[in-house]
Amino acid sequence: MTVAEGLAALAPARRSVVTRMSPALGVVPAQDVVAGELLPAHARATVDGYAVRAADTYAATESLPVFLDVTGAIAMGSAPAGAVGPGASMTIPTGGLLPHGADAVVMVEHTSEPMRGSVELLRRVAPGDGVLQPGEEALPGDVLVPAGRPLRAADLGLLAAAGSTAIAGHTRPRVGILSTGDEVVASATPALAPGQVRDACAPALAGLVLEAGGEPVLRGIVRDDAAALERALAAAIAEDDMVVVSAGSSVGARDLTATVAARLGEVVCHGLAVRPGKPTLLADCGGVPLVGLPGNPRSALVVFRLVGMPLVRRVAGVTAPPPAASVRARLARDVPSLAGRLDVVQACVEVGVATPLFGSSALLGPMVRANGWFCVPEADTGLGAGAEVEVLLY
Amino acid sequence: MTVAEGLAALAPARRSVVTRMSPALGVVPAQDVVAGELLPAHARATVDGYAVRAADTYAATESLPVFLDVTGAIAMGSAPAGAVGPGASMTIPTGGLLPHGADAVVMVEHTSEPMRGSVELLRRVAPGDGVLQPGEEALPGDVLVPAGRPLRAADLGLLAAAGSTAIAGHTRPRVGILSTGDEVVASATPALAPGQVRDACAPALAGLVLEAGGEPVLRGIVRDDAAALERALAAAIAEDDMVVVSAGSSVGARDLTATVAARLGEVVCHGLAVRPGKPTLLADCGGVPLVGLPGNPRSALVVFRLVGMPLVRRVAGVTAPPPAASVRARLARDVPSLAGRLDVVQACVEVGVATPLFGSSALLGPMVRANGWFCVPEADTGLGAGAEVEVLLY
Repeated sequence: MTVAEGLAALAPARRSVVTRMSPALGVVPAQDVVAGELLPAHARATVDGYAVRAADTYAATESLPVFLDVTGAIAMGSAPAGAVGPGASMTIPTGGLLPHGADAVVMVEHTSEPMRGSVELLRRVAPGDGVLQPGEEALPGDVLVPAGRPLRAADLGLLAAAGSTAIAGHTRPRVGILSTGDEVVASATPALAPGQVRDACAPALAGLVLEAGGEPVLRGIVRDDAAALERALAAAIAEDDMVVVSAGSSVGARDLTATVAARLGEVVCHGLAVRPGKPTLLADCGGVPLVGLPGNPRSALVVFRLVGMPLVRRVAGVTAPPPAASVRARLARDVPSLAGRLDVVQACVEVGVATPLFGSSALLGPMVRANGWFCVPEADTGLGAGAEVEVLLY
Repeated sequence: MTVAEGLAALAPARRSVVTRMSPALGVVPAQDVVAGELLPAHARATVDGYAVRAADTYAATESLPVFLDVTGAIAMGSAPAGAVGPGASMTIPTGGLLPHGADAVVMVEHTSEPMRGSVELLRRVAPGDGVLQPGEEALPGDVLVPAGRPLRAADLGLLAAAGSTAIAGHTRPRVGILSTGDEVVASATPALAPGQVRDACAPALAGLVLEAGGEPVLRGIVRDDAAALERALAAAIAEDDMVVVSAGSSVGARDLTATVAARLGEVVCHGLAVRPGKPTLLADCGGVPLVGLPGNPRSALVVFRLVGMPLVRRVAGVTAPPPAASVRARLARDVPSLAGRLDVVQACVEVGVATPLFGSSALLGPMVRANGWFCVPEADTGLGAGAEVEVLLY
C-alpha cells in the first residue's frame, strides 16, 4: 500500500472530546466560530487627523487650501463630545470614534493649523477616506475562524477582538505510546547490559505527537510476550484516542504485534511502500487508530511523520490540510511598493495563484483569511501581476 | 532602518537562565551535548538472519549454496550464549547482539534451512554486512546535539538512546506583553462602550511568543499615561527576559512609549522600513530587549514575526538560523529508488545543494545531522545527481 492508500484505508470515526475552552494556539475549533456583533461597532479613524464632512473638502488643493473650524477633539476610548457640523472639524487620533456628522478623516500630514481653532486642508477627501467602517472586520454571523483548522496567533487576536473568550474546541487527543522488545530498557538506565538498548522511540514519538497537536501518554516498555502486549494495548485503546506501538525490529516481534492487533481490532494495512518504514501496521480498534511502527527508531520516525502525524491531526478534529511549508505562486495582481522598504503582504494561495489581501492594518480578518505571506524586498519597486513569489505559509 | 539593520542594532547581552533539565521538544541546549559512551556498545544485527564468519560464505551462490551448522540462537536483550566457530552460525534477530567469532549476518531471505541444525546460504557476505558496528552511532565525546538549536523529535530519540536524561538547557524566556491605550479593554469585556476596543494584540502576541519558544507573561493594559506606563514597563523589565508593548495607534500614544522607553534604556531604532509596521521601536533596557509595536494589531503581528520572534529566539539561546519553511536544492548525488515505493531521504542542504544522508535505519544520527527530508515519489525510479528536490526542513 502507498502511504496515501494506507491513510485512506484507516478511517476510524472517533475524534477527541469536544468541550468549551479558551482559544489558544493550536486549539482546533469543533464548529465555525461566528461573530456575535458588528466589528467594529462604530466608524473609527485609521489615521491621525481631522474628522470632517467630505463635501466640505472638495475644493481643497495644495495651492488653494480650504479652512475649517476645529470645534473639538476626539479622545481615545470615549464617545465623542459633540458632532461635526458644516464647515467644522474635530481632531481625531488613529482609532478614535468618528463623531456624528463627519464621514471622513483628513490625515494630519495633509493639513496645517495656522491658528488655534481652525485648520487648513491641503487635499480633498472622499466619504470613507481615513475611516474604518462599522462591520468592516465582521458582521454578526460572519465566520471568524473556521472549524477544523488549528488556531494561529492571528486567530487568537480576532477572537479576542470579538470577545469570543470561550469556544467549542477539541481537547488534545491522548496518544498512547508503547515500546516493545526484550532488549529495550528505559532511557534513564545508566549502564546497559550486553544486548540492551535504551528506548529512543518513545521520547522521539512523544515529540512528534506534540508537534501534531496531540498529548503523548508514555505507556512504557512491554516484553515480547503476546499476553503482556495484549493487556497493555487493550488498556491503551480503552483510555487513549490513538495508540502507537514501536513493534520491535525482528520479524518475530513484528509478527507478535500483528497477531495481537488482529485480536483487538481490524488490521487494514500491514506493509507500506516506503523506505525506510516498510513493516508498518495500521489497525482500527473500535474507532481508535493503532499504528504499529518498525522497531528501528529512524524508520519509526519517518513513518510516524508520514502516517502517524496526519492521524493525530485527524483524531484532533483537524479537517484543514496540513500547511505545506512554503509554496511558489504567481501573483494575481500588481503589488505596488516603495524602494527601500520591505513590504509584507498577506496572500491567499490557490492552485499556484497568490491573491494578495489588502485592507486597513486595523483589520485582522485579512490575516485570518490569508494562508501565507510574502515579502517585496527593500530593493524592489513593486511586483507585477504574474510575478513568482515564495509564499511562506502559516 | 531595514529589518535586518534593526535586528543587528539591538544586541542585548542577556539570555534566559540556564539550568539542568530533561530534554524536551524545543529545549535549547546551552552547550553541545556529547556522548559519554560508545553507541552502540556492541556490534548488532541490522537484519534477521544468521550470524556467520564472512570467510565461511565466500563460495556461496544461488546454484552452489554453502552449508553451515546452526549452533545456537541469539535472544534479544541478553548476551549471546556461546560463540560462532568456523563452519558454524547462530540465528540472530534484527537488533540482536553479534556473538563472538561472527563478523557478518546473512539475511534470512538469502538462506534456507533444509533440516534442523544446519543452514544453506545462497549468497556470500563481506565482513560487516548486516551489522551495526560499535560506535557507529556515536563515539565517546561525539556531539550528539549542538548547542543553540532547539531540540527536535529525532534529537530526543538520540539523547534517550545515549542515556542523556538531563542536559544544560535554556529556560523558556519570559516575554512580558503589555498593551497600552485608553480605548483598550480586556477581551472578556462582554459589551463595549462607544470608542472602546478589546485587546486583540496581547493574545495574538502570546501565540507568536509561544511559537518562537518563549513563555508569554500577560501584563495587562496600561492607560495612556507616562507615569503608569513607566511603572508597568519598569516592572516588566525587572522580571522578564524581554518586553513587548503594543504602543497605541495614535501619534500621541507612540510618542509616549518612545519617551518612556528612552528613560528606561537606550532606543536603538524608532521606525522600520516595513509595511505595515513602520512605527516600531527597539530599545535595550539594561540587557532586556524592549519592542514597541504599532497599535494596529495586524501591523503589530507582522512586525513581531519579523523582529520580535527572532529576538525571542536570541534571548532563548538559539544560535542556529531559524529554519526556512522549505527549500529547493539540487541533489549532490544519485538517489536510487524502486518504482511503486515512496522513498524518504534525510538530507543536509547547504547553498542550494542537498546531500542525501544514508546509513542504517538503526542509526538516529543521520536524522539529527540532516536539516530536512525529501521524498522520491512512488512513480520514480530514483533521482539523478543535479535533480531539483523540494526539501522540507525540520
